[in-house]
Amino acid sequence: MAKSNKTAISPTRGDDYAEWYQQVVKGADLAENAPVRGCMIIRPWGYSLWENVQGAMDRRFKETGHENAYFPLLIPLRFIEKEAAHVEGFAKEMAVVTHHRLEAQDGKLAPAAPLEEPMVIRPTSETIIGEAFAGWIRSYRDLPVKINQWANVMRWEMRPRLWLRTSEFLWQEGHTAHATEAEAREEVMTMLEIYREVVEEHMAVPVIPGEKSEGERFPGAVNTFTIEAMMQDGKALQSGTSHYLGQNFSKAANIRFQTENGDWEFCHTTSWGASTRLIGGLIMTHGDDDGLRVPPRIAPDHVVIVPIIRDEAQQGPVMDYAETIAKRLRGQSFDGAPVRVRIDGRKIASQEKKWDWVRKGVPVTLEVGPRDVEAGGAALARRDRVRDKKEILSLDEIAGQLEELLWGIQSNLFEEAKAYRSARCRDDIAGFDDFKAYFDAMKGNTFNGDGGFVRAWWCEDAATEDQLKELGVTVRCLPLDQPGGEGPCVLTGKPAKRMAIFAKSY
Amino acid sequence: MAKSNKTAISPTRGDDYAEWYQQVVKGADLAENAPVRGCMIIRPWGYSLWENVQGAMDRRFKETGHENAYFPLLIPLRFIEKEAAHVEGFAKEMAVVTHHRLEAQDGKLAPAAPLEEPMVIRPTSETIIGEAFAGWIRSYRDLPVKINQWANVMRWEMRPRLWLRTSEFLWQEGHTAHATEAEAREEVMTMLEIYREVVEEHMAVPVIPGEKSEGERFPGAVNTFTIEAMMQDGKALQSGTSHYLGQNFSKAANIRFQTENGDWEFCHTTSWGASTRLIGGLIMTHGDDDGLRVPPRIAPDHVVIVPIIRDEAQQGPVMDYAETIAKRLRGQSFDGAPVRVRIDGRKIASQEKKWDWVRKGVPVTLEVGPRDVEAGGAALARRDRVRDKKEILSLDEIAGQLEELLWGIQSNLFEEAKAYRSARCRDDIAGFDDFKAYFDAMKGNTFNGDGGFVRAWWCEDAATEDQLKELGVTVRCLPLDQPGGEGPCVLTGKPAKRMAIFAKSY
Repeated sequence: MAKSNKTAISPTRGDDYAEWYQQVVKGADLAENAPVRGCMIIRPWGYSLWENVQGAMDRRFKETGHENAYFPLLIPLRFIEKEAAHVEGFAKEMAVVTHHRLEAQDGKLAPAAPLEEPMVIRPTSETIIGEAFAGWIRSYRDLPVKINQWANVMRWEMRPRLWLRTSEFLWQEGHTAHATEAEAREEVMTMLEIYREVVEEHMAVPVIPGEKSEGERFPGAVNTFTIEAMMQDGKALQSGTSHYLGQNFSKAANIRFQTENGDWEFCHTTSWGASTRLIGGLIMTHGDDDGLRVPPRIAPDHVVIVPIIRDEAQQGPVMDYAETIAKRLRGQSFDGAPVRVRIDGRKIASQEKKWDWVRKGVPVTLEVGPRDVEAGGAALARRDRVRDKKEILSLDEIAGQLEELLWGIQSNLFEEAKAYRSARCRDDIAGFDDFKAYFDAMKGNTFNGDGGFVRAWWCEDAATEDQLKELGVTVRCLPLDQPGGEGPCVLTGKPAKRMAIFAKSY
Repeated sequence: MAKSNKTAISPTRGDDYAEWYQQVVKGADLAENAPVRGCMIIRPWGYSLWENVQGAMDRRFKETGHENAYFPLLIPLRFIEKEAAHVEGFAKEMAVVTHHRLEAQDGKLAPAAPLEEPMVIRPTSETIIGEAFAGWIRSYRDLPVKINQWANVMRWEMRPRLWLRTSEFLWQEGHTAHATEAEAREEVMTMLEIYREVVEEHMAVPVIPGEKSEGERFPGAVNTFTIEAMMQDGKALQSGTSHYLGQNFSKAANIRFQTENGDWEFCHTTSWGASTRLIGGLIMTHGDDDGLRVPPRIAPDHVVIVPIIRDEAQQGPVMDYAETIAKRLRGQSFDGAPVRVRIDGRKIASQEKKWDWVRKGVPVTLEVGPRDVEAGGAALARRDRVRDKKEILSLDEIAGQLEELLWGIQSNLFEEAKAYRSARCRDDIAGFDDFKAYFDAMKGNTFNGDGGFVRAWWCEDAATEDQLKELGVTVRCLPLDQPGGEGPCVLTGKPAKRMAIFAKSY
């Protein structure tokens, strides 16, 4: 692979970042546009990434005492209406079911049998899960209730983009009810930390955990916390949110409990969610001009063996040898489980195979041809250094260093992304003019270009959020990690108690 | 538990079988009716059963070369219309999305922004997945394509019943495309066998694998195969189906491939599905008058430790001891994984706890009180013999026999269900009068009553299926296991080549 200067993805990031993204999604067989507006088909390679993210999250949810359950897809309008801010936030983008039958009319099928009350396809499930909680909870002994749901949701998108913004997406939504505010707030932070762990430690995507500003809160929440990642165009991607809902939803749905003293109180509830959008963030963090690069911990395959067969007589011995290697390597472990090894036995040109796996981002490929069968070795290429010369290694050498190699790739990808973010994060912006100039410079293709994140004091005045909108900038979060003390707001000069991350975003 | 003659579920199966079922679903915290007509909320205990069934299936799907993917929830009407028999089969029960916004009208929310083309919520995904296959498949080298999807689907039910018949349900649907009929037919049988394995070997529910009659085929299929289970009221429950679709759907969606010779041919496709309905079958196979009994292989917990604490001073030592037992038993393995142990630390009466776990059907409970702490033992009760006296055993004895005990419970449940089915399966019905009398006797509550399955020669004449309908009976399947030769049809006396299973059904 070292010989070619041509990239496996065209255009490159530098040529056209937005189109590069689409081509990586396509070239890595991750997803495609569905014939339903705004929706996508998640192809096996993309779905498998999601399954691995799910696995890492689900295990942690269960370890922290959550149980999975499932609630209806459809929500009657009367539920949605209960929390005012909530309905306001979602009304404009809801798919509405109005009929429950099709009948032929003028030779074509048309909706028939109208519903007494229309229903929406859930954009999120606070209202219907809250209703269930109200039935389940009677006493302090029933608390806390800690539920998670893996589900599809719909939010009608006017400008859809694969993975990042689709009308239907897959996610998990956690919903919990607690006796006290302190316990609910602890839950909110525990789940935010789980998101950080999975996204940083499994997906190798560095994030900044912090609190959302008032203007960016979840509709109906008291506080919203987020993890924010930087993409390679310097823009932010919100990658998971955790909300303290206070008693807003418990009052709307009447989720009450009797205390030890016999008093009735409303529960303090939380919700938290992360979605298939994370895969979009993965692509824009680790993708390069040859396609996706998958961190080993979430890779569907860790190693792909590509047999190089030039004539039919070589087929048997080379494939047998590939099986021998696969068996040996599957006996090795990585991240607490056997190494995942695939043999690409497709009858197509071996160059084509190799570049398929480069585009899909498999961490390690091993090419084996007739000469390797004799020598007992293979040519190893690592995806994080795809332009390096392949290394010819013996099978013993490969087996001996594989686990370390995979951890090395995992950590390289993370460190590389952190370095990229650092290079595009300014914390020395002096005042509004400097601030404006920094973001004004983000024009056209901003891959490796000017601009990025600004970390600066902010007075948290709601009016400044409108001012930012004019620049196409938002407060991404008030990071949990604060220097303490106070400083002058970068926008107004007024005294500010917390620093914020400002950025353009997806 | 041996002392009480009162049952934990009221009414008993003998009193009112249908109501008993509802009370087990409720008493075991499996599910509840949602505030959306025909839909259910799956509670954690029920969802965990489903997750364990999913796990057993998903592993087998992957081992046999299938990959998971995800397709849109919504299907445009023009897709649904493509396969005539298919639309005919589903049109009457489809939820239709017609709008994508809500707006306030006269102070209430109402649907706004009509869609150009209405869409249905998928009742199944042959049409939309077929469309994707048409894009993915070009050459014989692309075949076979073997995809599975875990998803929710909707079929508007007029007479819903929890788990058995709900407007929304969870399932998996497999969809494959092949170059030859032979290969597609092999796939259909492989997947049927996987269903049989999971349902019999994990859920301990005996089934009869067979082919569906013409009248009972999936809309649009060439052949449908099924696994059929017997419930404790003698009725059949279809528990998984696998369809050979021939070229019907590939012609409708234009799924073609170029052969090695360069000719273009239509693929042979299959589909196969199993759903949360299986949990309904589990309840009606293994439930007794004290609630559910869960086979250990799919049990969310294998062992629940119930601390018996009469005063506060005992709390510390007894809970510590419970932790010691839990730790020890979690070090044991069952079915290739650590034993799943829960300590019920709720501060409610211990009698109440014990009966909660009986109703939920956890295979083994261990009661530990202050005396057991001193003696180093526990009182063991097995759910499959809930009315037996508890056994006081030492911790060593429990740990030493736990794995065998769990396998024993697994096999007892399966054998008991097989014996029940055998006792209610007649294969000596002489002719139509006898046949009619057998099914006419199935009146009112048929738990442990007359009737059940009939295994008899059948001429496969479509007209006889209408005749059966009048008796409320259907051909459940033509079992794969046939005696060979031929015999006189039990309905018409005409010569028949295959024997069929006849039954009333869910």
